[in-house]
Amino acid sequence: MNYHKINQEDIVFFQSVVGKDAVLTDKNTTQPYAHDETEDLIFYPEVVVFPSDALQVSKILSYCHQHIISVTPRGAGTGLSGGALPIYGGLIISTKRLNKILKIDIDNFQAMIEPGVINYDLQKALEPDGFFYPPDPASWGSCSIGGNVAHCSGGPKAVKYGTTRDYILNLEVVLPNGEIIWTGANTLKYSTGYNLTHLFIGSEGTLGFVTKIVVKIVPKPKFNTLFLISFKSAIEACKAVNNILTVGILPSALEFMERDAIEWSIRYNNITSIKINNSTNAILLVEMEDNNQEALWTQAEKLNKIFEQYDLSEEILMAETEEEKAELWKIRRKAGEAVKSNSIYKEEDTVVPRAYLPDLLFAVKNIGKKYGFTSVCYGHAGDGNLHVNIIKGTMSDDAWEKDLPNGIIEIFKKCKELGGTISGEHGIGWVQKKYLPIIFQAAHFKLFEGIKHTFDAHNIMNPGKIFSIK
Amino acid sequence: MNYHKINQEDIVFFQSVVGKDAVLTDKNTTQPYAHDETEDLIFYPEVVVFPSDALQVSKILSYCHQHIISVTPRGAGTGLSGGALPIYGGLIISTKRLNKILKIDIDNFQAMIEPGVINYDLQKALEPDGFFYPPDPASWGSCSIGGNVAHCSGGPKAVKYGTTRDYILNLEVVLPNGEIIWTGANTLKYSTGYNLTHLFIGSEGTLGFVTKIVVKIVPKPKFNTLFLISFKSAIEACKAVNNILTVGILPSALEFMERDAIEWSIRYNNITSIKINNSTNAILLVEMEDNNQEALWTQAEKLNKIFEQYDLSEEILMAETEEEKAELWKIRRKAGEAVKSNSIYKEEDTVVPRAYLPDLLFAVKNIGKKYGFTSVCYGHAGDGNLHVNIIKGTMSDDAWEKDLPNGIIEIFKKCKELGGTISGEHGIGWVQKKYLPIIFQAAHFKLFEGIKHTFDAHNIMNPGKIFSIK
Repeated sequence: MNYHKINQEDIVFFQSVVGKDAVLTDKNTTQPYAHDETEDLIFYPEVVVFPSDALQVSKILSYCHQHIISVTPRGAGTGLSGGALPIYGGLIISTKRLNKILKIDIDNFQAMIEPGVINYDLQKALEPDGFFYPPDPASWGSCSIGGNVAHCSGGPKAVKYGTTRDYILNLEVVLPNGEIIWTGANTLKYSTGYNLTHLFIGSEGTLGFVTKIVVKIVPKPKFNTLFLISFKSAIEACKAVNNILTVGILPSALEFMERDAIEWSIRYNNITSIKINNSTNAILLVEMEDNNQEALWTQAEKLNKIFEQYDLSEEILMAETEEEKAELWKIRRKAGEAVKSNSIYKEEDTVVPRAYLPDLLFAVKNIGKKYGFTSVCYGHAGDGNLHVNIIKGTMSDDAWEKDLPNGIIEIFKKCKELGGTISGEHGIGWVQKKYLPIIFQAAHFKLFEGIKHTFDAHNIMNPGKIFSIK
Repeated sequence: MNYHKINQEDIVFFQSVVGKDAVLTDKNTTQPYAHDETEDLIFYPEVVVFPSDALQVSKILSYCHQHIISVTPRGAGTGLSGGALPIYGGLIISTKRLNKILKIDIDNFQAMIEPGVINYDLQKALEPDGFFYPPDPASWGSCSIGGNVAHCSGGPKAVKYGTTRDYILNLEVVLPNGEIIWTGANTLKYSTGYNLTHLFIGSEGTLGFVTKIVVKIVPKPKFNTLFLISFKSAIEACKAVNNILTVGILPSALEFMERDAIEWSIRYNNITSIKINNSTNAILLVEMEDNNQEALWTQAEKLNKIFEQYDLSEEILMAETEEEKAELWKIRRKAGEAVKSNSIYKEEDTVVPRAYLPDLLFAVKNIGKKYGFTSVCYGHAGDGNLHVNIIKGTMSDDAWEKDLPNGIIEIFKKCKELGGTISGEHGIGWVQKKYLPIIFQAAHFKLFEGIKHTFDAHNIMNPGKIFSIK
């Protein structure tokens, strides 16, 4: 694609719309916007702007549409598939100043927010009313809800509550030509034409720029309990996952971690209170919640009974205090960062029907042996969503560049064979798009291109992401 | 649109694909396919075919695409917006022979079915395993799941479980040009390109023909309880709805009915065991469920406490037996049929954020006074979804034809003003499309047309539904 290179005249225009202090142009200040959390990839934008309302976004997009300037929308930059990387340079539109919680409407179980609101900040704002917003990515302390919408993010609570998709009622969107629309209505039910809201969710900023989000919120259950269960065999841990769910227990989190992930995260977070046994090869974190303390205990007993069938490596640990719960969650939530700090790696966001998790894990390890890589796996086992972190370790640069992609292809083919796909919650972005033909046939790409063209005839919105325009 | 009129040669082709016994051509046999449950509308198809697999559908669609024959997909014909009416004649493709439950996969909480499977038949098939499929439209005894997908149907359980959208994992679709694709993966999480599955849900058969559906199923809670609460004031009943939910009770059904709807349905169903007090003007049906009987009682007490604040017209009735529950549900589920048998009517499927239900009901009655119509309202109050049945009664034909549409426009404008929309679960189909400009602006229609063109360049799939191609 040939995009117009941003010149001084363009910059003056941007400044006239958002104000001088809301336009960055030199490499010292744009550097933080040249990367997200995906591997070590760097792409500098030419300019970064910080609009503070939909009208400003509209003026900017209309201008870029007219002048064919590539536009990369950017939330908090915590993405893992390179969705926020400005691969053609051009303009980054940040949601940093679109960060207001506009309305919390307890009567209707909904809130209206701007896309730059940090996930955890919304949680905090809802707490006094006893409510919460269920989608809670591991990075909830730093990721924005606009980014969550772009990738249809999940998180530990998805096993009980579903993903971002299940909590977005309506979106205000600026289309690439500058038109502003609401995609739907602020209702729980909707059968009024093609569902544009759901088309935008997971479209990774390629169809328009979200400026307001109406989310569904729910009352927070009063009691919860958290168990750490240690297994000698990782495959057995995966099997237990399905066992828990089929007896009718619906945990509010059901997380899996391999030994390396736990150890590395414990070390990375300087946690001293939790130790793992030498014979432990994997753990499950199981959280349950209820408004009724008695009912919760009944569930906990039922849960413990299940694990009697398994060859555990140590006693089941129940977090006694809020601090213990927080430490266990820190180990899980910071696993990604811990792995990142430890080695060059690639993270694959595999997902399969839940009962096939043991098959997937088994295949990943075997493929690793074949191609000479090790992997650290953890993830949202209750959803069949396994994050496979492939570790460079002692692998040669050559093997890493040339052989590894074939190994990844084999992993993804296995996902497909099991009825799964290549991304459960991280998106395709820039780094996974080369693998998309494993999942889709020509007819899919034709539909994708047609949809893209309908929304963005000049192909200015996050170009090069998900798929390439032919 | 100019569609090719089906001739003998075309019929011979259809017969060669599906067999002679699976092609209907004369008015005596096509008559049942000339209407659905929408008002008294009749449109005869030229031909009806009954394919029994995706390949047959593909051959037929590919032929129709080439010859520009209009195609109307048809499930069980229980729709209320005219979605299954062949308004251009042409071909009806029925799902009658696509009615197999292909796989029930308890381990993965999912089932693979064909679109012609009747909702209730799936429920029955899941019962031995203690599972169920939550979306349960009032017409569940006769509606097909393919039709549910087309309209994103709801039902009483939506207040707790969500609508059809929340239970569809993956679809096999024959595109209008005959290509066969799967829209996604059989997984609970999905972030792999534009979500085609969600685009198809609610698209009312205008984008392709669904031939297989992977649905999510869930364990059925062991215990449930059902209450009938009678109110002197319909507005007060609507207010109570929100009261129930904000104290943290999540019923598995929360239904509202005005007096006329109850009375007519009791009479229509010849029910003698349930009587309503003279001072009752509306009722709520509240169902709660749990795996823990104690927890259920605690919830029930909490519920009863709420109603102490209200001026009820009689004692709260708790259904004591399964038979009593079934009778109460019959009254609710057959309300539509009862109204239909009583008068010429029009049903509007209004939906607003739940707390605004009293405002909507108040507005409907006032608009009725202004335009001289009465209405019988009932619906899924827990979702803010009110079915407004406008009764012709003594209204003149002239007023019915000319004045009423203006009244309906006022009702829909009120829905929009309250953050709602004009259809929660019935769809737009044929009868509501003239009202769509109340909700959408030109930019929306441009997107709809672009999407339609991407999937169906020759505009053969259910043409004239939802919106018209310019």
